Amino acid sequence: MATPKKQKLENGNAGIPPMVTGGTVSWERHGAPFFSMGEGTLRVPMQMHQAHRQKLCQALRARGLEGDAVVLLQGGEELSVYDTDTNWDFKQESNFQYLFGVKEPGCFAALRVRDAHGVLCIPRMEKMYEAWCGPVKPPAWFAKAYGVEAAHVDELSEVLEKLGAKELLVLQGDPNRDSGLQLAEPSFQGKEKFKVSTQGSQILWDEINECRAVKDDDELKVLQWVNDVSSSAHVETMRRMRGGQREHLAEATFKYQAALRGCFRVGYNCICGSGRRNAILHYGHAAEPNSEKVAPDSLRLLDMGAEYHGYSADVTCTFPVSGRFSVPQKVVYEAVWDAVQAVEHKLRPGVSYKDMHRLSQRVLLERMVAAGLFVGSVDEMMSAGLMFHFMPHGLGHQLGLDVHDVGGYAPGSFRKDDPSIKENLRCGRELKENMVITVEPGFYFIDYLIEEALASSKGKFINKEKLYEFWPSVGGVRIEDDVVITAEGCRVLTCVPRTVAEIEAVMGGAEWQVSSACCRSYTAE
Amino acid sequence: MATPKKQKLENGNAGIPPMVTGGTVSWERHGAPFFSMGEGTLRVPMQMHQAHRQKLCQALRARGLEGDAVVLLQGGEELSVYDTDTNWDFKQESNFQYLFGVKEPGCFAALRVRDAHGVLCIPRMEKMYEAWCGPVKPPAWFAKAYGVEAAHVDELSEVLEKLGAKELLVLQGDPNRDSGLQLAEPSFQGKEKFKVSTQGSQILWDEINECRAVKDDDELKVLQWVNDVSSSAHVETMRRMRGGQREHLAEATFKYQAALRGCFRVGYNCICGSGRRNAILHYGHAAEPNSEKVAPDSLRLLDMGAEYHGYSADVTCTFPVSGRFSVPQKVVYEAVWDAVQAVEHKLRPGVSYKDMHRLSQRVLLERMVAAGLFVGSVDEMMSAGLMFHFMPHGLGHQLGLDVHDVGGYAPGSFRKDDPSIKENLRCGRELKENMVITVEPGFYFIDYLIEEALASSKGKFINKEKLYEFWPSVGGVRIEDDVVITAEGCRVLTCVPRTVAEIEAVMGGAEWQVSSACCRSYTAE
Repeated sequence: MATPKKQKLENGNAGIPPMVTGGTVSWERHGAPFFSMGEGTLRVPMQMHQAHRQKLCQALRARGLEGDAVVLLQGGEELSVYDTDTNWDFKQESNFQYLFGVKEPGCFAALRVRDAHGVLCIPRMEKMYEAWCGPVKPPAWFAKAYGVEAAHVDELSEVLEKLGAKELLVLQGDPNRDSGLQLAEPSFQGKEKFKVSTQGSQILWDEINECRAVKDDDELKVLQWVNDVSSSAHVETMRRMRGGQREHLAEATFKYQAALRGCFRVGYNCICGSGRRNAILHYGHAAEPNSEKVAPDSLRLLDMGAEYHGYSADVTCTFPVSGRFSVPQKVVYEAVWDAVQAVEHKLRPGVSYKDMHRLSQRVLLERMVAAGLFVGSVDEMMSAGLMFHFMPHGLGHQLGLDVHDVGGYAPGSFRKDDPSIKENLRCGRELKENMVITVEPGFYFIDYLIEEALASSKGKFINKEKLYEFWPSVGGVRIEDDVVITAEGCRVLTCVPRTVAEIEAVMGGAEWQVSSACCRSYTAE
Repeated sequence: MATPKKQKLENGNAGIPPMVTGGTVSWERHGAPFFSMGEGTLRVPMQMHQAHRQKLCQALRARGLEGDAVVLLQGGEELSVYDTDTNWDFKQESNFQYLFGVKEPGCFAALRVRDAHGVLCIPRMEKMYEAWCGPVKPPAWFAKAYGVEAAHVDELSEVLEKLGAKELLVLQGDPNRDSGLQLAEPSFQGKEKFKVSTQGSQILWDEINECRAVKDDDELKVLQWVNDVSSSAHVETMRRMRGGQREHLAEATFKYQAALRGCFRVGYNCICGSGRRNAILHYGHAAEPNSEKVAPDSLRLLDMGAEYHGYSADVTCTFPVSGRFSVPQKVVYEAVWDAVQAVEHKLRPGVSYKDMHRLSQRVLLERMVAAGLFVGSVDEMMSAGLMFHFMPHGLGHQLGLDVHDVGGYAPGSFRKDDPSIKENLRCGRELKENMVITVEPGFYFIDYLIEEALASSKGKFINKEKLYEFWPSVGGVRIEDDVVITAEGCRVLTCVPRTVAEIEAVMGGAEWQVSSACCRSYTAE
């Protein structure tokens, strides 16, 4: 790949050509701008964001919004760590990223619904910015870098007037389905001159989520890329894991291996458990920072995903740190792997993800009956909700700019609408072509949930002898693939060792080639 | 070092011993609790924080606060990334860390001034916490882990009443000297029953800063440890740098090398420039993410520091990526190194850091006159403020729990009080024994500042021929040591190759041993 020629800034100086900066955004002379982390990494065309703007505006017009409506977005700000002058590591707000792909903090943007004309407004920097942060990039630089009209934030009110905005649409709708939170309403000088439409804002919220839920070809390339990087980094990490290490070595190794490949952040906190701690679903947070010692006979559960241009992979591998599964570890692992495969063979447009969730539960119950852990009728176990005690989470979720991406439920429908599903199911809709979802069944030995099951009528299904055999030696298993829905079935984006034989071979030093070609594609049965 | 036996949680279950968690806080049976990242890493005794509580209360009593005054602190909260269910990577608020050393978010704490009796209040977790985040640790666990009385946050009002609090002191005083920001005032149920003292709160703010500004032996051990780790990680990084790489490989390598040694975070954004970009003082932020390609003949300027138990190192190395300094690179590098050494030979209790700042400027000017870049009288250059154009930052700053640590100015004095210093000087006081500061002179070719100098009467000092020779090939140089003030002089905590000969040898493959013994100690002249 040829090195792109960076557009030089026009801040000429006394005889010295201006320095090259601009970070990750480049364009050939007269060429189209793109994001990339350099040679050997993916080029993401900024044209993708223009297509997103057009897609959104078309959807809004189809909902009857037209004429004078203008979407107003506020990009992310750098946030100070308490009262200090350090910042939390910046990440662009996902809707802003979706529509404009801008990595700089402190921006606003306007988007006219009628013709999808967008204007990016950037902060005006003081002269001292150059000494501390780098060349002050004028609107003309942003216009070239992002392929969009650009102005300063202090001109936003004029920009909106020029766009003929009578009615503003802002991202104020239902709360985020996963967090229950809402974005702050954008605030800017001159806002009082415009009317914010409450109804239009809810429509905007619905439609941007629906747009983001179905990926286009450029987005699929990025999601494949972050999966390729994550798959390689997982394999490199897996090979280096030994008993006696601290758990966090997995996190450090994955991040380094992902960075070597051009992905410089992860999309979520790395979950790097071992043994019993595999049963802590979101292990690896501030209070439990992947810091215990790994027992030599334990399973490791590593849930880690690289990020690129805002898009995240979400991949979980479970494997024995010794390189060899024990019998109980193998039984549970293969049950979970059967559940993955059963689901992936069924996925296609029109399939209900709730049905897939139930399918995975049923497969796990059947395998556990076969293994002697559960005793009785699988139908009765399904009705009694036994699986909640061994997999309290849902089968998976939408994946994209957020790791728990928007669009898991269709507009107006909510997770709690269906009391028949007690698990935390983040996606509960009929799937469409080009949705990207995770398939991540698991089976966990979570102390209090087992105690609750044993103390209830569900205790009759559980063979205690097997339970005590499995509980401490297995801890927990999760297998997580990222999957795109195709016209006839699905394609798995993740390419890591999955069968017991593959894992034992790779842990023993066998080669593993990550390539799009190795990913499994299915035509639904 | 023997593996500590973790105290088991008392959440007994059906015949299975409880899992081991607790992260990084451990205690032997009946032993004193400590923080550590496992074998081979430093143990930080929680007793250190009790000593901090006593030191602070003693200082408050010396300021006339006694009787019914109780310090009330709010610890850091996990912050959501916009409206999503991911979080910014949690770091404890520094004052809370100083007094209680607690890594868990969502806590409060009370501290009675009379006898330094502290009570830690922890959030009450729902049962589901166990499935998602890990065992629910009761107050008894926190009491053992942190060596302090513990209760729940919803009992805070009762806790304060039991402590006999009539008057609350909260961290509301002057704004942070570096950021200009203030902490939010703590808010809790039942607060209206207590009176918050405005005057007492300013005293608290002054005194906690003064306490933090002078380190005790345990803190010095931590700061030596983060320097040892940072020095090793810098050397490992330096050895791997080549022309043609992307700049961010330095950041990825440093973080990995620091993590291998038990430091799992950095104290600030890594600054990883090359060539001309070395002149961007805080390069490596969201808009300029260390992402350019490194020219094979350029200097790299790497400013990176590992963090441990909240304490940060702050170390800068500048070196030629080719392994050999060019003549202009060597001239500027050695001038900066002379400035470092001149200052370190003078440091001792009672010395004014402002004088040290001016000393470093004078040395740089002298060396640049010798090199032919500047022409004329150094005294006149000092009066004219020429150095502002080539080193707009201050000589250094306090270092501790914040990378720009508190206490750079004595209570009631401010940076802007002294108009004779135009540079951004973060420390401007007489030094005391056991203060830890950075010594980080630099010399940069910052386009607009040079243009301003050339356009002004200061232009007469500058030899343009030399300027154009140095400008693009040097870009910028900074050398940064962390230094503790001793009774008779100072001790340098940082141990990296510094002379041209050392750097060229290490880049050529020579061994480099990082040990406390290798650090330079000086007795002031």
